[in-house]
Order: sequence, then C-alpha cells, then structure tokens
Amino acid sequence: MSEPTTHRLQPEIYYYTFGPNPPALRVRSGDRVVARTRDARGYDETMAPLPEERKQRHPDCEYCSSNPLVGPIYVEDANPGDVLAVQIEAIQLTRPSAWSRHNQHFGCFTGEGPGRRLLFNAPVPEQQYDWQLDLARGVGRLALPNSRIGAVEIPLHPFIGSIGVAPRFGRVETALTPGEYGGNMDCIETRAGTTLYLPVWVRGAYLAFGDVHAAQGDGEICGVALETTAEVTLRLWVLPGRALEWPRLEDDTHLMAVGNARPLWEAIQIAHLQLVEWLVADYGYDRWEALQVLSQVGTMRIPNVVDPAYTAIAKFPKRFLP
Amino acid sequence: MSEPTTHRLQPEIYYYTFGPNPPALRVRSGDRVVARTRDARGYDETMAPLPEERKQRHPDCEYCSSNPLVGPIYVEDANPGDVLAVQIEAIQLTRPSAWSRHNQHFGCFTGEGPGRRLLFNAPVPEQQYDWQLDLARGVGRLALPNSRIGAVEIPLHPFIGSIGVAPRFGRVETALTPGEYGGNMDCIETRAGTTLYLPVWVRGAYLAFGDVHAAQGDGEICGVALETTAEVTLRLWVLPGRALEWPRLEDDTHLMAVGNARPLWEAIQIAHLQLVEWLVADYGYDRWEALQVLSQVGTMRIPNVVDPAYTAIAKFPKRFLP
Amino acid sequence: MSEPTTHRLQPEIYYYTFGPNPPALRVRSGDRVVARTRDARGYDETMAPLPEERKQRHPDCEYCSSNPLVGPIYVEDANPGDVLAVQIEAIQLTRPSAWSRHNQHFGCFTGEGPGRRLLFNAPVPEQQYDWQLDLARGVGRLALPNSRIGAVEIPLHPFIGSIGVAPRFGRVETALTPGEYGGNMDCIETRAGTTLYLPVWVRGAYLAFGDVHAAQGDGEICGVALETTAEVTLRLWVLPGRALEWPRLEDDTHLMAVGNARPLWEAIQIAHLQLVEWLVADYGYDRWEALQVLSQVGTMRIPNVVDPAYTAIAKFPKRFLP
Amino acid sequence: MSEPTTHRLQPEIYYYTFGPNPPALRVRSGDRVVARTRDARGYDETMAPLPEERKQRHPDCEYCSSNPLVGPIYVEDANPGDVLAVQIEAIQLTRPSAWSRHNQHFGCFTGEGPGRRLLFNAPVPEQQYDWQLDLARGVGRLALPNSRIGAVEIPLHPFIGSIGVAPRFGRVETALTPGEYGGNMDCIETRAGTTLYLPVWVRGAYLAFGDVHAAQGDGEICGVALETTAEVTLRLWVLPGRALEWPRLEDDTHLMAVGNARPLWEAIQIAHLQLVEWLVADYGYDRWEALQVLSQVGTMRIPNVVDPAYTAIAKFPKRFLP
Repeated sequence: MSEPTTHRLQPEIYYYTFGPNPPALRVRSGDRVVARTRDARGYDETMAPLPEERKQRHPDCEYCSSNPLVGPIYVEDANPGDVLAVQIEAIQLTRPSAWSRHNQHFGCFTGEGPGRRLLFNAPVPEQQYDWQLDLARGVGRLALPNSRIGAVEIPLHPFIGSIGVAPRFGRVETALTPGEYGGNMDCIETRAGTTLYLPVWVRGAYLAFGDVHAAQGDGEICGVALETTAEVTLRLWVLPGRALEWPRLEDDTHLMAVGNARPLWEAIQIAHLQLVEWLVADYGYDRWEALQVLSQVGTMRIPNVVDPAYTAIAKFPKRFLP
Repeated sequence: MSEPTTHRLQPEIYYYTFGPNPPALRVRSGDRVVARTRDARGYDETMAPLPEERKQRHPDCEYCSSNPLVGPIYVEDANPGDVLAVQIEAIQLTRPSAWSRHNQHFGCFTGEGPGRRLLFNAPVPEQQYDWQLDLARGVGRLALPNSRIGAVEIPLHPFIGSIGVAPRFGRVETALTPGEYGGNMDCIETRAGTTLYLPVWVRGAYLAFGDVHAAQGDGEICGVALETTAEVTLRLWVLPGRALEWPRLEDDTHLMAVGNARPLWEAIQIAHLQLVEWLVADYGYDRWEALQVLSQVGTMRIPNVVDPAYTAIAKFPKRFLP
Repeated sequence: MSEPTTHRLQPEIYYYTFGPNPPALRVRSGDRVVARTRDARGYDETMAPLPEERKQRHPDCEYCSSNPLVGPIYVEDANPGDVLAVQIEAIQLTRPSAWSRHNQHFGCFTGEGPGRRLLFNAPVPEQQYDWQLDLARGVGRLALPNSRIGAVEIPLHPFIGSIGVAPRFGRVETALTPGEYGGNMDCIETRAGTTLYLPVWVRGAYLAFGDVHAAQGDGEICGVALETTAEVTLRLWVLPGRALEWPRLEDDTHLMAVGNARPLWEAIQIAHLQLVEWLVADYGYDRWEALQVLSQVGTMRIPNVVDPAYTAIAKFPKRFLP
Repeated sequence: MSEPTTHRLQPEIYYYTFGPNPPALRVRSGDRVVARTRDARGYDETMAPLPEERKQRHPDCEYCSSNPLVGPIYVEDANPGDVLAVQIEAIQLTRPSAWSRHNQHFGCFTGEGPGRRLLFNAPVPEQQYDWQLDLARGVGRLALPNSRIGAVEIPLHPFIGSIGVAPRFGRVETALTPGEYGGNMDCIETRAGTTLYLPVWVRGAYLAFGDVHAAQGDGEICGVALETTAEVTLRLWVLPGRALEWPRLEDDTHLMAVGNARPLWEAIQIAHLQLVEWLVADYGYDRWEALQVLSQVGTMRIPNVVDPAYTAIAKFPKRFLP
C-alpha cells in the first residue's frame, strides 16, 4: 500500500463542543493526523494559556470551559451508517508537568457538575496538585506534605480523555458529557496500540479530541486526572456500512464495548449488550453461548463516575475468539 | 399599559431540536404569540402529515423524529442571565381526535429509547390507540374491545408537552430529552393559567414548543400521551438578571420547580433544592425553615419516567407564603 | 354477621424490626384491634420516653432506634399465599404536639442513613421543630422565627408511617427499610378509610405498626414528618389464596399499588406493573389496554426518597373500572 | 506461637440466611476452620442433592433457595465494635464439574430477581451450562455447539462467592443480598491469600459461607458463575475495637474496600470513602491527599450487578503506602 498522507494539524480555534463545527482539516480514509493537544484548561506545553480569541466563542452564549478540543476533522467518504476507525499510533507526552485538581463542586463524592449544583453539599476544598513528570522514566511524582509517605511516584500511561465525532440526531454536546458519539470517556484503553471505532452520525464524521491524561485511576474519583499536553498521532479509516450504536475499542488482547449513560447500571447494560452483539455478528458466537462465556471471562472497567454521563467498558479477551 | 403586539406564527420549517436554529419569529418582551402546533408525529388538525421538506433536515445527518416544534422565537433583549417568563394564556384543542401508541422499544417498562436499544428486551406489542375527543364536553373516549369495561371516557386537560429555549453551553438537544433549558418535560402543569420561567442561556432565548397533550397520566408510563394539535397563545416577558439554573413554573396556587435528569432521584433533588432557593430568595424564608415546611406541605409530581432524562416537579402551596 | 371481637393491645415490648418476633396478640380474621402507638422516638402521648427495658433488646446486638412498633399480631389462619387485608378504621391523634427534625446525616439532600455515612458530606444542621397540634381544628402550627412569614398553620392528615408483616424468605428487616412486606412506607394514603393489602409471607403474618404522622409532604424530604402519637383502630381480614408480591391499598376512589426499592425508578416500575396486574386479574382489563388507560389517567405519589428503600405508589381511579 | 486449633466443620443444617442462627461451631480467635461447601443449588462433590431435612426450614415460611451456607460459626470474644479477620488460607476445588445457568428472570439484562419479577420482560431462555473442570491443570472447559469456536477452555480462579456475618440492627438477610455484613458479594478477590475484614455486628459474629465459584467474570452478568464445591480453610482472628462500617479485604498487593448497595453508584461511593478512611486512619495519609492519590492510582472492580444489592470494590496498591 502506498504511504499514507500525514497531516499536521495546528488548530486556530479550539472547540468546547462535539458537533459539526467548521472543520479544521479534511482528510481521506487511510490518512494520518498528527496534532498537539492542550490540557483540560487550555494550557500548552509551555503552560501558556489559550487566548480567548482562539476559544470556541459565540457572542450569544457561554461554553463549558473544560477540555478544549483539536479539530474537527472532516473525513471524506464518512457517511452515516459507516464506522470511523481511529487507530491510535502514538501519544507522546510533551510537558514535564501535569496538574490535577479538587474542585468545590465536582467529583464522585459531590455528585455535582457544571450546571448541577446541589446547594446543600459541602464544597470539597479547592486544591491544585502539581505532578512532576519524568518522561524518560515514564513516572509522575507528587509531593504529599501532609501525609506520612511524603510523596508518591506513579507509572504514567498516557491516553486520550476526550475523543469523539459529531453526535447523533443533530445534537451538539459539551466536551464534558460522553455519549453515543464517544466524547469525554476518560478511558484508559484509549491509548497507543488501540483502535477506537466510532459510529458516524453526521457525514464527514467531524472527529475531535483533546484532554490527554498522563495517568488516571478508575472512576476518575476526584473528577480530574493528571492533565497534560501531548502530541497525538492517529490513523483514520472509514469502514463503510459497519453501523454501530455505541463506540467500541480493540487492541491486541481485547474486544471492548463502551456505554455512556446515567445511571451507571444503564451504561453497563449497554456495554455488555454491544459486546455480545459483536461476538455474534463478527465471530460466529451464538447469542446465549456468548452471554455465558462473557459472564465467566469478561472484565469491566469503570472509567468515569463523575461526568454528566458515566462510562462503562465491557472487555472480552481475544484468546476466546475462534 | 398599551396593547401587546400579537404575532401569529405559521412555521415554514418545524425543528426537531432545541438550539439556536434560524428564528421563525422575532418578538419583544410583552408580546403575545399565537401558533398552531402539530402533533408528536407531525400531523396537523386535518391529520395531514408534515411534508419532508418542511422538517428540519440536514443532508449530513438524521434527526430524532418525535415532537416537531414551532419556532424558534427570538426574543429581543433576552440575554444570558435573564429569565424568559412564558405566560400560557390559552391552549385550544383543534382536532376531534388524539392518538396514543405503544412502541416496541420505548416506555417505562422497557427502559429503552431512540439510540438505546436493549437487545434482550421483549418488544412491547406495537399498537396505536385512537382517542375520540369531544372538545365541547372536554372528554376523550377510547374503545377497549378486549376489556370488560368496553370503553373509557376521561376528562381532557390540555397542556404543552415540549417547550424550552436553546440549551446551555452551546448544546443542541433533541426535542425528546429535557434539561436545564426545559424541553420535553411532559408536565401537566404547563397549561393555561401557568407561567413557565425558563433560564436564558443564549441571547435571544430561541423559544420553541410543540407536542400538545390532550391528557396524560403521571410518568407517561407507556411513553406516549394523548397526542393532538392545538392553538397555543403565549405572552412572553423578559425578566432581566433573574438568573435561574433550572426551569420553574407558577400558577394561582403553587410555586413549582423542575429537575430534568437521570437518575430520577437526581431530578428530585434538583427540583427540591431549587424550590428551597426560591423560597429563600424571594419570600424571606430561612433556608432550614423552608426545608422543614416544604418537607411537610410540599407535593411532588413525576411527569415522565420514559425520556432520556426524567422529570420531577416539586410544588409548594402559595397559601404558605407571607 | 356477628360483632367482631375487639382487642385492645397494650404492648409490653416495642419492636424495632419486622419479623416473627414473639407475638403480642393473637387474633382471628375479622377481628378488630385498637392500640396506642408511640412516636418515632418512642415518646408517648405525655412525652414520656420509652423505658430501655421495654424496647426490643438483645444483649448481643444493637437495633436501629427509629420507629418502635406495636405488635406483632399473630393472625390465625393467615398462611403464606394469603393476603392480610388491614382495614384502617380510625387514626385518632392523642397528643397536642408533634416534632420534626433535621438530622445531620439523613434526608433527601444528604443521601445518607443509619450505617450509610458519606464522610465527605456536610452535616445538615441538627435542629428539632416543635409543632403545636390543634386537634379540634385539625391543624398544626410551627413558629418560624427566622422567616418573614413568622409561622405556618397546616392541615393535619394523620396516617400510619410504618405498617407491615414479617418479610419474605425468613428475612428480618428494620422498621426503617420498607420492602415486599410493607414497612416504613410513609404513605399518606395509609389513613382511615383505606384498606391495606399485605402479602402473608410467614404463617401468622406477624403484623406490626407504628410511626403515625400527623402530616407529611411528598418524599419526606428532610427525613422526618410530624411525628406524634395516636390511637389506631384496625380491622383485619385474611383473604385466602390471594397471593400478592407487593403491598396494595384501596379506598373509595382509587386502586393503589406500592413498590419499595432502590433505585426509585425500580420502585416505580414495580408499582405500575402490579397495578396493571390487578386490573387484569380482577377487573377484566386486557393487559395492553390496561397499560394504555393507566398511562393516561394514572397518578403517582412518591412518599419517601429518604429511607434505605424508596417508595412509589401508582394509583388508578376507580371511576374507570367496570 | 502455639499451633492453632483446627476445627473440621461438617454442617448438619445448611442455612439460607445470614443471621444469629443456631451456631454449628464455636471457635476462638486464632483458630482454623476447614469445611466442605456445597454448590449454589446444594449439590455436593458427588452431585448428590441436599436433602430437604438438612436445609434451613421453618414450617411457617419459605426461604430463598440459593446459596446454602456452612455455619454459622460463633467466635468467642467477638463483640460488636470488633472486626473479624478471615484469613483465607486455601480453597481446594473438589469436583471435576461446575454448572452455570441462565435463568428466565435473573441477571444483568433482566433486572429481575427473586420477588422482583418485571412481568413485561422477556424471559431469558432457561439453559444450564455444564463446565468440565480439569483440577490438575486448573482450567474449565465448555462445549459451545452453536458457536463457531466450538468450545472454550478458561483458567480457574476459585473464590468464595458468599461469606459474611450476622447483619446489623438485628436484621436477618438472605444469602443472595450482600450488605454491611458481607454476604453474597461474588468477589473474585475473596480467594486464598486474601484476608477479609468483617464488622462484628452481633456478639459471636456468626460467620457463614458457601457458594464457591471456580471462575467468574466481572458483574456476574448472566447471574450465575461456575458453581461448584470446595474445601475451604480459614483462619479467624478477632481484632478488638477496630470498628468498621463495611467489609474490607487485603492481600499482598492491595488494600480493598467494599460497598454493597443499590444503586451501583452508591456502592462505589461507599467503597471509595471507606478506602480513603483506611488510608487516613492506618497509613498517615491526609484525607485530601489520599483522595488525590486514590483518584490517580486506584482501581475498581464491579463483582456483581445482578443481586438485590450491587457490589463495588475500590482497590489501592500497597506500593503507595509508607
């Protein structure tokens, strides 16, 4: 096969919504895209803030200010009913620091979020945490002055926190609320070596991404991971007629299906049903036998219990495929 | 006061989303709007279908096909941080029939909806129910050939099922999913004599409405009410600087606050917190004394447990206001 | 029919669980029981506390200290698979005062309860509210020194907050957590003129009750109603072979079915399914026609969103029965 | 230290509830217990059924028929406010077969369970699956006649599905519904090499266990794992005054805390809050620094989304302890 076209994407405007915003780039199936992402608050690798005039702005309304996105990328020949396969080739961290944060009204314990203040809740003490990243060794370090341990050093595992296409039904969604289109799933598995399959809902797909995390635990309990910047390399493929209802992922070892919903149990149901459907449609499994095997060998990860929609991933080991 | 300007709105295009779609009408605070709505499937008072070319269409994507909306109405001087007060002056039913429907994959018992198929569920038997409306007597009649009772005749209480403004954060939402902007709340109280207060999130507000119900029970359990057409008369007022987070309603007897969310308990929390806030901000109640009184005299209605976001209304009797 | 036997029940021991505790009374189907209940904290009509030695105690464990119950009443000829019909003949308030309370870690806004502390929550300010009851006029009055209104006077509507039988499967449950056996449902409808139908799970039924409320709003939002004492008169009937899965109620105007569960949506599903089943089994409704009619004329009340299981009541107007 | 006393427990009666049932054995802190468990339907290692007269039976009521338990074990000197540490020394599978099952009205997709039938749901096709266990190689094999793959062979990882003490507040709970006392948590981590910490709610603790699984996936999606028999060896310790609210586990690599509740989000909150509390109380972590580190390095497993209470486990790697 011929060498793919590589596009270097330098966004002028960063968007805070997933939707058919004016494309920043047009590509074809098989092309490669390389782009530098800003962190969840818009800082770049030098910690320079994102200038106001480069943020998605409309004089008539305000935007949720988390997760500025690179894109959108318009994929020629991507039509509703197709799948956009996003092969994550590399995520190169580009800054020796990441920050995390406890916000007063966000996170698993508060149950709150932008636009959803529960006025009787105690605010969580607002606090920023500055992690130093040793990119050569692949670790992050945080001083803990109030704890006996004094500091921790944790392995880094960079991944894309927010990546999706324009949503279904003409919806435009914030970069904070994942859904049937992907979005802010905070999925550890969205890393180099994984292919992400996204349903195409709007012709052109309108892929956008950002919010790279250097590390994160399950659930993203405090609401914020190790937020940093990266250079992301993706290869994009259109799979015609492979209609999906929800995102999926695949790597060397697992088939994975995603549900994004509230309540969490619904996200779990969606993910597991999609995984069974995949086993039936593509791997010759009988539906009920697939349910039995999945029930005994499947694993489940809960990436996010903090966003307006929660995320669940159901995973099936490929060693049990024919 | 001078006579308000009355606008007769005849939509060319019916929208299936709430958002800053091209305005169908521009009005000023204090104006009156009269419009004829189509039913949830787009039929008019003669049961003529909505022609495809008059539906919100975009060549690049499909829309959820429920609840075509009249509007949007651009309200001059409505700015973010203001409230749009919608005084519902009249809802005149215009057709001697309404239909309801059991859909295979929608409703309280299935937990499904557009884009959310739970593949292992039994489909509910698809069935249309044709109600005859006697508008003079204000009753609806349904033949029940398989039941001992043979038929029922129920009182009608027309109300607007879907009414809202452009959502927050630049979102565009389907006419099926209510939220912080109003929308498909299926609220019985959204009837003549009630004023609905909607937060203005986008300058101009972009009010839209449709989906009038001739009658409906709590929860909208089967997913569909008595769907029909009506002529709706609204008076619109801008209340500057009266910022709200969620919709509210008011009639002669009650203050009411609305939560639209999943899970339902969250919608209930939102509604009750907003109601307490209202009592504190406008009626001189101490926060905790307001909580106590509300806990003893408040009522709660659950209009919808079928849509992608559920609706709860918390109600406080005005007889307990100073 | 001959005059029913009337039993005056003066409990020696007050139980804090629903289960096959040693019966305080044995009755037959058709008998009447009159008993004086203590309030939710065990005070009697003179505000005398419940002595420790008269509380259900076991040297080996502690009990949840809310809702001391009168009973249990062993009903001869009540067998598993039967229904115990509890005809509530009278609830006579017996004290000119009721108290309510805000507890630090209980109520709709905290989501906490006994054994379920969410350590990061703000405690709600602990506060007792003393309501004066004018039993002749049927109103309760509360001074509100911190609010502009100064005081409120509200109508009383006494009802039984906790009433149930021994649970299913050999379970023993606290007087705080309702379930398939009834229990702490906090149902406004559990008042004079209503008949409560409880499934018999254990031979003898083991009916117990207490926790009379002088008044209460939907949801019992702060966690506590107007707690007071009463003399309760019940007539008990065994309906053989009329097996139920969940409690039901009936009065002059409505058939009602109850669900007690978390999450709330599940309680709502249970209640509505049971109501449909009732219409089919006893009133000749076709299942799907019953669903349609219920969807259009049904009402729903949410008595409690504070206890370890939430309660939902689905109601069907009897005017639509053959 | 002197050799611990080893008790071989041969139950006469198998209980279907967790509660202060008549003890089958009395032990002291430090003792070892060895017992053979029956499978979830009561079959022993020869597939002989459990005779009716050896099942917990009461002439007055029926029991939920899943998970017959070995015990209860009365632990001398175990008092409310203490912790019972259960050191799982060995789980030796004793039968070359396991069965799994799809039941009509149970499992993640139906949302149903004993006593909770949703009458409109499609029954899942009832089907038993017979797994052959090669205990020497530690694998299980299932023929899949309707699937292309033909059969699967999966690694075994035996663990105890149900283990707990008498519940709190005088409750008696089925062997199906986990809670603040442990119970049917279906936790993969409850395996040899792990210590389970259970709060003592009733003097004597009344430990019981059963329901060993040869293997299981996250969520126990179909409702049933690989059910089989085993010989279980436990060492029991009383930790005086180490009061817990919820169960915990510990192995070589992780501290783990458990929440058992509905909705699942509540179980997740409970588990994570308990884990933070543990880090603060025993490891000198500052509360907010613990939250930050847990948010970045914690993992979460969801063992069960099928039982009347769901289970979540929050896990903290011990490498990040001082």
